[in-house]
Amino acid sequence: MKRKLVSTITGTEYPFERLEEFADNGEALEVALAGIERARPRAGRHLWERFAEFLPFRTMDPSASLGEGNTPMVDAGGRLKLFTGIEQLLLKNETQNPTWSFKDRGSLACIFMAREMGERVTATISTGNMGHSIAAYGARAGIKPLVFVPEFAPREKLMAMTIHGATVIRVRAPDYAQMKKTVLGLAREFNLRIVSGNGPIRAEGYKLTAFELYEQMRGDLPDYIAVPTSACGHVRGLFKVFRELLVAGLIQRLPRMIVVQGANNSPIVSAIKQGAKHVIPFANFHTVAEAITTGNPMGGDEIIAKACQHGWLAEDAAEEEILEAQRAFAQAGWFIEPATATTLCAVRKLRAAGRIAPGESVVLMLTGAGLKDLEVLKHHPFNLVESKLDSVRRDVEQALS
Amino acid sequence: MKRKLVSTITGTEYPFERLEEFADNGEALEVALAGIERARPRAGRHLWERFAEFLPFRTMDPSASLGEGNTPMVDAGGRLKLFTGIEQLLLKNETQNPTWSFKDRGSLACIFMAREMGERVTATISTGNMGHSIAAYGARAGIKPLVFVPEFAPREKLMAMTIHGATVIRVRAPDYAQMKKTVLGLAREFNLRIVSGNGPIRAEGYKLTAFELYEQMRGDLPDYIAVPTSACGHVRGLFKVFRELLVAGLIQRLPRMIVVQGANNSPIVSAIKQGAKHVIPFANFHTVAEAITTGNPMGGDEIIAKACQHGWLAEDAAEEEILEAQRAFAQAGWFIEPATATTLCAVRKLRAAGRIAPGESVVLMLTGAGLKDLEVLKHHPFNLVESKLDSVRRDVEQALS
Repeated sequence: MKRKLVSTITGTEYPFERLEEFADNGEALEVALAGIERARPRAGRHLWERFAEFLPFRTMDPSASLGEGNTPMVDAGGRLKLFTGIEQLLLKNETQNPTWSFKDRGSLACIFMAREMGERVTATISTGNMGHSIAAYGARAGIKPLVFVPEFAPREKLMAMTIHGATVIRVRAPDYAQMKKTVLGLAREFNLRIVSGNGPIRAEGYKLTAFELYEQMRGDLPDYIAVPTSACGHVRGLFKVFRELLVAGLIQRLPRMIVVQGANNSPIVSAIKQGAKHVIPFANFHTVAEAITTGNPMGGDEIIAKACQHGWLAEDAAEEEILEAQRAFAQAGWFIEPATATTLCAVRKLRAAGRIAPGESVVLMLTGAGLKDLEVLKHHPFNLVESKLDSVRRDVEQALS
Repeated sequence: MKRKLVSTITGTEYPFERLEEFADNGEALEVALAGIERARPRAGRHLWERFAEFLPFRTMDPSASLGEGNTPMVDAGGRLKLFTGIEQLLLKNETQNPTWSFKDRGSLACIFMAREMGERVTATISTGNMGHSIAAYGARAGIKPLVFVPEFAPREKLMAMTIHGATVIRVRAPDYAQMKKTVLGLAREFNLRIVSGNGPIRAEGYKLTAFELYEQMRGDLPDYIAVPTSACGHVRGLFKVFRELLVAGLIQRLPRMIVVQGANNSPIVSAIKQGAKHVIPFANFHTVAEAITTGNPMGGDEIIAKACQHGWLAEDAAEEEILEAQRAFAQAGWFIEPATATTLCAVRKLRAAGRIAPGESVVLMLTGAGLKDLEVLKHHPFNLVESKLDSVRRDVEQALS
């Protein structure tokens, strides 16, 4: 299998073995495989075996897997259809992964590649889902997890990484950007790869989700797939599958992506809406959607270009809308983190504006479990019935009425 | 399909339609289906369709499902094999369910039955995984979830139920037993079924896990299955499948169960070890394993009888062992709650004592996600590297050395 890395806008080629996370000019890189037009799914127990001809991995040892994937695609049910006005609404629940977020698919890919390259350390900069996933997969594979976190990282999230045996380095710095720059500089010096949420290998991991979706929908792909977007790796990994399946002649049309961000931090969505070509950086914002806080995503220009080229949609969600959508999800059965909730209000707005037409089908990606952030619950009404032994009869009566 | 309820020790029969949770004398009840010896798995998309001939449900509408099941069965890896001394060690990860615990299988069953019976409310007494699962499944099905909780229930756990729209009644009472008695009395009066963790319908739900295991292992069943045990519904639901598959002639031998409890609360394990016939009640204990705190499980005598009859094993885990096992799990890649960790130290002790022989295979049930209880992390070492921009080079160097 011939493989190379290609920058996503200018097409500059890089040798695969350098495994860069980004092109020299900051563009996103993607894997290009020779012969993808002849690639075919084949029989196999694991998803990555069945779609091996579409993937760049030379060694895919099940011992690297924690059992990610095989997540359900479920009809969203009447309440969420009523909420959004969308009749064909499906949920792809990536919170049913080993560390309860979509990140695990990308982490598996990173470990496959780290093993091939003989790396002894897998490192990232993260305060949340990414750090936890890298910590868990590093532990599984016996590849030392190293996570850099900023000063403001909440203690409990760090403890959930260190219990996996990860080395967590908390760096005091004037701001996050400066901390990141210093760490990336050191990494280059020490020949240490810092895994980014938008690196080309992670994107190959997220492809597994879309291959699974393709299998589950038996080729009857949805019109739209809505994705909460931060670093951008998820949305581009998913879409890359459909481009490849199209080239291979296995599908006839591309689903369109819906890029969703919080209104308080919408560097990609703002650019798409304004018709700009470049990421519009956000800084010093606050949002309840803690899992999507990349204010200036490296390689984000690719997503803006793809949105323009392929007629994607983009929509944001205000803080109050996010909380309302989180409640709506929960009242339909799914407790998901605020970042995930953004998609629900976004597609409601797009449907109301007629951008999503009646009868068009939409898949929402459930990216992270509600348990990831219990702090946010303080923003919701808390209707606890306080009762006593001598008043519980009345309270039960009332509850049943 | 002819179905009835039978008490598990004396064999007294009850009409299925009464749907009692326990026999009048407190014995566990189980579903008996006519013709199980001729039951066969058949083709179907959903697990419950494939094993419909083994299940008592007349309506199994996918709209009641949140997408539970399809959880991975994974090789435990070298570290855990070394830790336990067991070479054939597998994990069945039930934390990859919609509310991140094994409870969802039982909740689906309860909703199937509530719909058949036309119930408008689904109620339980719980502070934890059970309450959350019932809240989520009730929301999904449009059947009002009603959860009674004791005074000491932590606020965040209750908020995670109320966001689903559950009515949560917190009852102040001198002790938990008195609160429970009052609620059960009222329930009878109001004709409200309070779902127990050891009810016959929940056990039918847990059967789905064992059918899945049977499919995943392609009939090559393990020698042992280790189950953290509290209310007892899980272990008996799992084992019931193997009894039924044996009767149907689909397997030739029964796997043996390993009943595991915390040493501070081991009403079943103590009885089995001492050769007693009845549950040995525990009260006023403290344990980090918050998900397995039933001190006097209704219907627990059945488990003790089954253990004796079928040569099951039973082992407990002391507080320090539980924490050690939780770290060992995490350092192998899985962040699971303390209750789940009990199995790891239990099987290590059983292997060391020769009760599990070399070469015998063991499946550990991973029952609940580590995210369910972040409080417990304070009991673990927290090795955070505190760094600054001018010292991070040295810290990276040290981390890589």
